[in-house]
Amino acid sequence: MPLEIREIGAGEFGSVWPIFQAVVSAGDSYAYDPATTLEQARDSWTTPPARCFVAEEAGVAVGAYCLKPNQPGLGNHVANAGYMVAPNARGRGVASSLCRHSLDVARAAGFLAMQFNFVAASNEVAIRLWQRHGFATVGRVPLAFRHSRLGLTDVLVMHRRL
Amino acid sequence: MPLEIREIGAGEFGSVWPIFQAVVSAGDSYAYDPATTLEQARDSWTTPPARCFVAEEAGVAVGAYCLKPNQPGLGNHVANAGYMVAPNARGRGVASSLCRHSLDVARAAGFLAMQFNFVAASNEVAIRLWQRHGFATVGRVPLAFRHSRLGLTDVLVMHRRL
Repeated sequence: MPLEIREIGAGEFGSVWPIFQAVVSAGDSYAYDPATTLEQARDSWTTPPARCFVAEEAGVAVGAYCLKPNQPGLGNHVANAGYMVAPNARGRGVASSLCRHSLDVARAAGFLAMQFNFVAASNEVAIRLWQRHGFATVGRVPLAFRHSRLGLTDVLVMHRRL
Repeated sequence: MPLEIREIGAGEFGSVWPIFQAVVSAGDSYAYDPATTLEQARDSWTTPPARCFVAEEAGVAVGAYCLKPNQPGLGNHVANAGYMVAPNARGRGVASSLCRHSLDVARAAGFLAMQFNFVAASNEVAIRLWQRHGFATVGRVPLAFRHSRLGLTDVLVMHRRL
């Protein structure tokens, strides 16, 4: 089924929310509090300069990402992105499509690089995927993530130029 | 002169502001936009969970720091801190006192580690200081800082357990 990826505003975040909630409540990939509310998630992902994009199949949201400057001011030439895929849409390239789309959008917006600050070292599938999309590991922070099943887990910093 | 370090709220941030402004307008250490306003700085440094501490000599502010969780939720056992010293108070250990104080406060607050995300690789004085306080470089992000004089400059991620 063709995947359509488009930018949305706060008013459409409701379609992303079930995906956000499923991903965050698992506690195995993002630092977000598993009890993050819809309002907090929406503000975090849609308040400028953050931009939110949704991936839809036949009008049904199957994934989303947030793109924003990784730092304010003198660091805002480096983008940051976070990707989420609905549990029932995994294993068929949605994350890869989201990543590719975000790299194009970031480049078009003038960012010079993209950085991920918090990639769980246990998330080998994601790490391999980001590597295939040109990201290199530039840092490793010991025990920075309280993984829901694995406990204290290292976190990778990954980066690529655009 | 004895240095007194104490926690302040938003209502006392006015004494920190000239220091913040001097440090940030130099554009050689922090990512903050050099045009950051008093209101933005105050919100960033005093809105919980951020906590602001000021160092005073005879009641005059000579330095300050902000302590906060480096991540929300499942990453909030790692602290983050940023230190600033007034230009006319440099070279006599104020930053070192601020760092030592922040490590004690962070430990008392239950943080398990402290992480700096954005140490300009050009800031050798600061890097040596953090190393003396037990921090190790755990990452290096290429060209992540637009240094006001040096242009695109690498950034270090530094870390220590508490």
